[in-house]
Formats: sequence, C-alpha cells, structure tokens
Amino acid sequence: MNIGIIGLGLIGGSLGLDLRSHGHHVIGVSRRQSTCETAMKRGCVDCASTHLSSLTTVEVVFVCTPLGLIIPTVTELITFLPKTTVITDVGSVKTPIVQAITPHWQNFIGGHPMAGTAETGIDAAIPALFVNRPYVLTPTSTTPESATATVVGIIQQLKSHIYYCQPQEHDQAVSWISHLPVMVSAALISACSQERDRHILNLAQNLASTGFRDTSRVGGGNPELGRMMAEHNHEALLNSLHQYRHHLDELINLIDTKNWQKLQQKLQSTQQERPHFVKEK
Amino acid sequence: MNIGIIGLGLIGGSLGLDLRSHGHHVIGVSRRQSTCETAMKRGCVDCASTHLSSLTTVEVVFVCTPLGLIIPTVTELITFLPKTTVITDVGSVKTPIVQAITPHWQNFIGGHPMAGTAETGIDAAIPALFVNRPYVLTPTSTTPESATATVVGIIQQLKSHIYYCQPQEHDQAVSWISHLPVMVSAALISACSQERDRHILNLAQNLASTGFRDTSRVGGGNPELGRMMAEHNHEALLNSLHQYRHHLDELINLIDTKNWQKLQQKLQSTQQERPHFVKEK
Repeated sequence: MNIGIIGLGLIGGSLGLDLRSHGHHVIGVSRRQSTCETAMKRGCVDCASTHLSSLTTVEVVFVCTPLGLIIPTVTELITFLPKTTVITDVGSVKTPIVQAITPHWQNFIGGHPMAGTAETGIDAAIPALFVNRPYVLTPTSTTPESATATVVGIIQQLKSHIYYCQPQEHDQAVSWISHLPVMVSAALISACSQERDRHILNLAQNLASTGFRDTSRVGGGNPELGRMMAEHNHEALLNSLHQYRHHLDELINLIDTKNWQKLQQKLQSTQQERPHFVKEK
Repeated sequence: MNIGIIGLGLIGGSLGLDLRSHGHHVIGVSRRQSTCETAMKRGCVDCASTHLSSLTTVEVVFVCTPLGLIIPTVTELITFLPKTTVITDVGSVKTPIVQAITPHWQNFIGGHPMAGTAETGIDAAIPALFVNRPYVLTPTSTTPESATATVVGIIQQLKSHIYYCQPQEHDQAVSWISHLPVMVSAALISACSQERDRHILNLAQNLASTGFRDTSRVGGGNPELGRMMAEHNHEALLNSLHQYRHHLDELINLIDTKNWQKLQQKLQSTQQERPHFVKEK
C-alpha cells in the first residue's frame, strides 16, 4: 500500500519504520528538509518532501504533527487529495479534531496510539513502538466502514490493541488517566515549593524521596504539552478536576474530623481500585 | 558500645546488621520469640529477648517499633533503665513522640532515618540500608548535648546524612514530601475509579499508562500506614492539604477561564521547582 506520514517525529518516524518493514511504500512529509533527510537516512520513509502535494497518490495518510497543527494541516492537505484517500491522525485529543475534519472529509477516522518514550523527534524513532500498546480509533456514524477497515488493517500489523469509542469517550478517559494526573501532580509541586518557612522548605527538598519523585513526575514535565492537553481537552479535564476536588475534600474532611476508621476504609478502596488501572509487572 | 534495639523489622534489623559490623554489641527485643530467633540467625543482633528488662545494661536504645507503639513502649522501657541510658526512636512523625517522652526521660532524642525498601519485617533487613540516606534528629532545648553526641556518633558510622531540626519542622517537611503525596494520589485513584459511565471507566482502565501508574503509586499503598501518617501528623498534614487545595483551585481557575498563557507559566514554574526536590540519576 502507498502510505503517507505527515510529521516525522517520534510517532511518525516509528510508524514509518514499522510500515516499511511490512512492505508498504511510505512517503513522509516534514516542514524541515533536514528532518526529511534524517528520516530517509534512518529508513523511516522511502522518500520524503516538505510539500503536502507529494501525497497525491497515497491511499492512506497518517497525520502525526503536534496536536495544534492537525486541523490546519488537514485543511491544506485535502486540497491535494482525491476523495477516496483515507486520512487518520494520532492526536491525543479527539473531539475537536473529529468535529472539525469530519464535515470536510468523509474518509476520515480519528486515532490515538498510546505509545511513546521520554524522547522526541525523528532521532528517537524506534521499531515496534506500538506493539502491545493501546491504539484508540474513534469512527463516527458517518465514517465509511471501508475507511475504518483500511486503517484497522494497518494498525493490526503494528500489533497494537485496538479500542473503539466515541471521540468524547476517548477524551474523558484520557482526561482521567493522563491529563488529570498532570494537574494533580503540578499542584503538588506548586504547593510544596511555596512553603514560606525557608528551613522547612530546605528540609523538605532534602528529605524528598521516591514517593514525592513518582507523584510529582508528570507535573514537572513539558509545560507546552501540559498547556496543550488542557487547551484542547478543557471540557473533559474540567469535569475530571471538579470530581477530583470533591474526592480530595472528602479526604480533607475525614482528616479534619479525625475519622480514622473511614479514612482507612477510603485508602483500602484506593488500594483495591488501583490494580484495575495499573498492571504491575 | 552496648546498644539495644526494640522492634526487629526492616529498620531495626538493618540497623542491627550495621551496628554489629562496627563492633557494637547489640541486644534485640521483639514481641515474638520467632522474630528473636530469626534476628539472631541472620546476624542482626548478638542476642534477643521478648523482655524489655533485658536492656538494663545498654548505653543506647533505638526504638524501632511501629509508630503507634513507640510511646507505650518507651513508657514501659524506662521503668527498667538507669537515668543515664540514651533513648532514641525512628518514628516517621516527631512532635507527639517528643512531646510525650521528653518530660519523662531527659536523655531522649527523636530521630527519623529516611530509608526503606518495599519489603517489611526481619527477613527484609539488609546491610547498608542507611548509607547516603537522610537521618533527621530533633533535639530540643532540654536534650543534653552528651545524648545528642552519643546518637550522632553512631549514626555517622551508618554513613547517613544527618539533618537537625525542631520536631514541628520535621513534621511539616515530611507532610509536604511524604504524607501529602499519599492523599493527593489516593484522591486521584478515588476520582478516576468512580467514573459512572461504564464504557469510559473501562477505557480509562485499559489506557492507563506510566503517568497514571507513577502518580497513583503511593495512593494505592498500605492503608494502615496512610491512616497512621494522617492520625499522628494530622495538624501538619491538614495545613499541607489546605495549601494544596489552594494551588489546585488556581489551576482549575486558569483552565476554567481558558487562561492558557498563565497556565503554561504555572507549569513552567513547577518544571523548574521539581529538581530542587528530586535529583534524578
């Protein structure tokens, strides 16, 4: 199959490596010529260009740009494509993207591969990044079955676990397990670092260990990414945050009223619930 | 030196291994005879007994029982000791312990070695557990310098980093970096697991990855330990929780009002603050 990939970073580059290994012909598009050259040198693409018009003949396009560029990229892209071309994206928020693109391109299906490493960029691209990782697809009532089938066929080759849901369901789910933790964790760093007693602050900084390290990790991450998550998924995230505050207030109240038995029950239930989300090795 | 250790678990047992390796004579006390036997077999103590009266001749006693047993243990212990014996404890909260014991025993100094593993009990005891780990000491204005010097001399042999502070300063510091994270993290699990839409909940459980895993780790830990932290350190923890909620509300407000620039600034500051607490390897 002829497949286009727009945006040659960690996701786009890794995707190209796998698709080529399955015999597909991959055409890459990047805004920077140097990225095109690296992608070709590393075997992520068969050929690459800085022009979207180079994708006129492909059957499927994966849009792997940063989240904020997906809609403008697709808007420009569709001026070059025949109506039969299937477009899918890999953005981490789905509702605004699906809502913006669907009216203008019928053969579109939103996607979100839940894979990554701590690195970014084409140099970080690795084979088999998507193996055994979740890959969410959000076909709507107007998505042609043939478009879904085409994308599914490709993703099955990546050996990902495919999940189907509505864009809004995806956004609320990732808000719970990905975007809310960032804000919860950022508020922790923020509160601790604004302790006004210098001696206590120094002591806290010196005594912090694995518990603080783990709980604060995602709150100390890339600020642009955190902002982008919140901006594009603000409705679902606000809902999660309000629910979260309710549960936090419940804990505060139990401690305030010294209701130690209920506090322990609450912590017992969180201990029991966590393994449903986290399968420790 | 003749040294007594009461409570032969991970901390007491590991302490015994190190003290014996430095030539001290270590007498252990445990409530269970089987623990005494294991401790002797593993070389954590020279001899062990289930009776506090066996410590009559030691110069220093380390009280390594669970937090809630420290005060009653010391209350009984001092009926057997000459007034010259130095007592120290390893409890993770200091104010209530120091306040309860100081009026009854002048040669007491509160301590808190910030070391541990995921395991508990005498079988988990290992050598060099305290090397390069913080060890907090909380002498008060009435603690004799000789008592402090005796304990410091021993801890220096463990190669710990010693920090001195008031019991209240210790409790506020550990509340920030150890007890608050537990509640923040527990509220996250609690909020996520009570999503009412079954499909979204299943999806969230299937999509949860490293971000959720790390942020939720300490909130899914031992419920008795979490309750005990809160019970014994409730004043400092309540203060931390109220501050935390203030910072959380600030984030919620920025997202609610779509103030993306200020949100990014806030996330930039948490990114900059975290390394003051966490020294990644």
